[in-house]
Amino acid sequence: MGGRALVQWEQNRDNAPDSLHVDLYAGGPAPAELEDVTFYQVPYVPSTQGVDERLDIIGRMPELRVLQLVSAGYEQVLDLVPDHVTLCNGRGLHDASTAEHTLALILAAQRELPRWAIDQRERRWTPSPQRSLADSRVMIVGYGSIGRAIERRLLPFETEVVRVAGRARPDEDVHGVDELHALLPEVDVVVLVTPLTEATRGLFGRREFSLLRDDALVVNVGRGPVLDTEALIAENGRIRAALDVTDPEPLPVEHPLWEAPGVYFTPHVAGGSAAFYPRARAFMDEQLARWAKGEALANVVRPGR
Amino acid sequence: MGGRALVQWEQNRDNAPDSLHVDLYAGGPAPAELEDVTFYQVPYVPSTQGVDERLDIIGRMPELRVLQLVSAGYEQVLDLVPDHVTLCNGRGLHDASTAEHTLALILAAQRELPRWAIDQRERRWTPSPQRSLADSRVMIVGYGSIGRAIERRLLPFETEVVRVAGRARPDEDVHGVDELHALLPEVDVVVLVTPLTEATRGLFGRREFSLLRDDALVVNVGRGPVLDTEALIAENGRIRAALDVTDPEPLPVEHPLWEAPGVYFTPHVAGGSAAFYPRARAFMDEQLARWAKGEALANVVRPGR
Ligand SMILES: NC(=O)c1ccc[n+]([C@@H]2O[C@H](COP(=O)([O-])OP(=O)(O)OC[C@H]3O[C@@H](n4cnc5c(N)ncnc54)[C@H](OP(=O)(O)O)[C@@H]3O)[C@@H](O)[C@H]2O)c1
Ligand SMILES: NC(=O)c1ccc[n+]([C@@H]2O[C@H](COP(=O)([O-])OP(=O)(O)OC[C@H]3O[C@@H](n4cnc5c(N)ncnc54)[C@H](OP(=O)(O)O)[C@@H]3O)[C@@H](O)[C@H]2O)c1
Repeated sequence: MGGRALVQWEQNRDNAPDSLHVDLYAGGPAPAELEDVTFYQVPYVPSTQGVDERLDIIGRMPELRVLQLVSAGYEQVLDLVPDHVTLCNGRGLHDASTAEHTLALILAAQRELPRWAIDQRERRWTPSPQRSLADSRVMIVGYGSIGRAIERRLLPFETEVVRVAGRARPDEDVHGVDELHALLPEVDVVVLVTPLTEATRGLFGRREFSLLRDDALVVNVGRGPVLDTEALIAENGRIRAALDVTDPEPLPVEHPLWEAPGVYFTPHVAGGSAAFYPRARAFMDEQLARWAKGEALANVVRPGR
Repeated sequence: MGGRALVQWEQNRDNAPDSLHVDLYAGGPAPAELEDVTFYQVPYVPSTQGVDERLDIIGRMPELRVLQLVSAGYEQVLDLVPDHVTLCNGRGLHDASTAEHTLALILAAQRELPRWAIDQRERRWTPSPQRSLADSRVMIVGYGSIGRAIERRLLPFETEVVRVAGRARPDEDVHGVDELHALLPEVDVVVLVTPLTEATRGLFGRREFSLLRDDALVVNVGRGPVLDTEALIAENGRIRAALDVTDPEPLPVEHPLWEAPGVYFTPHVAGGSAAFYPRARAFMDEQLARWAKGEALANVVRPGR
């Protein structure tokens, strides 16, 4: 393919086929020449806040054919990508990192890790009987790439998994989200890991909380607005929560979620741990090779028209 | 078998064979009649400190034939049990609970959960890139019942496991502890889960720490004195640690371990979570049935002579 590719990591530039002209852009001030860029991998910068030059420069790439994200979520660029550009995402690249953090959050909640951290800081030794994850029924809402990775890690903990996706897939034992209300009363833990779409915004609110058993745990590693923050706060500790994403994000200092009883959260760090980088670089090597040979790209979420 | 059995849980009394006389004792003031007790299950009271009536009363049981612990560790009773009494332990009953907590500790350290807990408390939102567990090589020192349960939970996290026990078992890929020093430079995480014996006391000290890579993680869920606390503190953050057991225990308020850099701990709560109880009650039903029928008991750690 003609034109120029803009990618983030040196490895990918060095391993690219000779036929491809590849330059580096890792974020920050825009490169001078953007007119001939045909393939743009938006640099991965964990938890960017505020102005985002990486996305602004898309409008200065008249020859763009492929916009490649290495994040799994892509709702943030849908309105920025012209119709003729193919949009690819980082499906799969965050599975190990995000699934691992999901287990960390579940275990933190069941085994009271935040409490021990604060006890240690205040030099208190106060053992007491703990909940466990074993013998729990865990529902995964959003049984996709990350959902499967979460399940693989959950099963050896002697748990049972209930799979939910947008549409039922009976051959895979996956329930449709239309069965959510019927299933909620029977589960101990709910993991939300759907993309943010019009259908998933506010998916988990007052009604869904009310259907859960006392002391159930809700974990959100998808996107903040999938869970109704006010509804969670209104539970006042009856339902516990462990979140990696919040709504809004970052959480303003005066927000009541900071001290909501039974709520523990981390600042959107699930996907970007050390496990992400080798997987992302390996994927980008393969994707550039496909692009150079004119082969079908992987992880296309919206083909260019 | 004649005489009387003393057990902790009603379920076990109710399910016991009719031929057996079973009474309840759940700890606290000693029962009046102890002379005819032949089978004594020492009540499980998590993290007992100070005077321990449960063990003192052993001396008042002249007919005792079986002392049954439901803990995995038994070093604390070896000197209290007369030679003719068979000692049984709770091997297996804590596997799910302890292995789960071990994963919680490893993930807490890799994903900085204590930091987020304190950030939440102080209303700080400070995301930053994280370590991961994926791609790590994890050594399990004490590849027994709990060690295997830890391994089962670790492998789906895309890790590699190195097995170490007292003696090598080449058919099972288990290294002997005599190979420990040769193996340490190649691992990212070490999990200590051995019993406390004369051979394991101080097993992990200055020399062993010095053989580990910078930023390696040492996890102790066995017994506090297996790890040399002073040697850990002397590492001053070069090696990280996540501990469920400490030496001494409970940790005195003025001890330097509370604030040792890179050290996170929980107050000996790994084994006694909710997962333990159903497993322990089911085991006790079976053990009493074996005792009533005169069958060989399970989990004998020292047969009576
Ligand atoms: N916290 C973090 O750091 C982090 C990191 C990475 C990703 N994420 C989030 O995780 C999301 C999922 O990533 P993925 O790679 O697993 O995506 P994926 O493979 O596309 O899977 C998404 C799953 O969500 C399901 N879904 C869609 N709409 C739904 C609805 N209304 N109700 C229930 N399920 C619904 C889909 O089911 P159908 O196929 O039936 O529609 C699919 O099974 C991303 O979009 C991103 O927002 C967060
Ligand atoms: N933190 C908690 O709440 C908690 C809960 C439960 C148990 N524990 C501790 O965990 C320990 C292990 O329990 P378990 O049920 O897994 O016991 P287990 O099945 O008897 O296994 C113990 C393992 O340790 C190995 N070992 C013995 N001496 C060793 C040495 N010098 N170096 C290396 N390995 C050695 C043994 O190997 P060989 O067979 O070759 O000797 C065996 O593989 C218990 O004794 C207890 O102290 C802690």
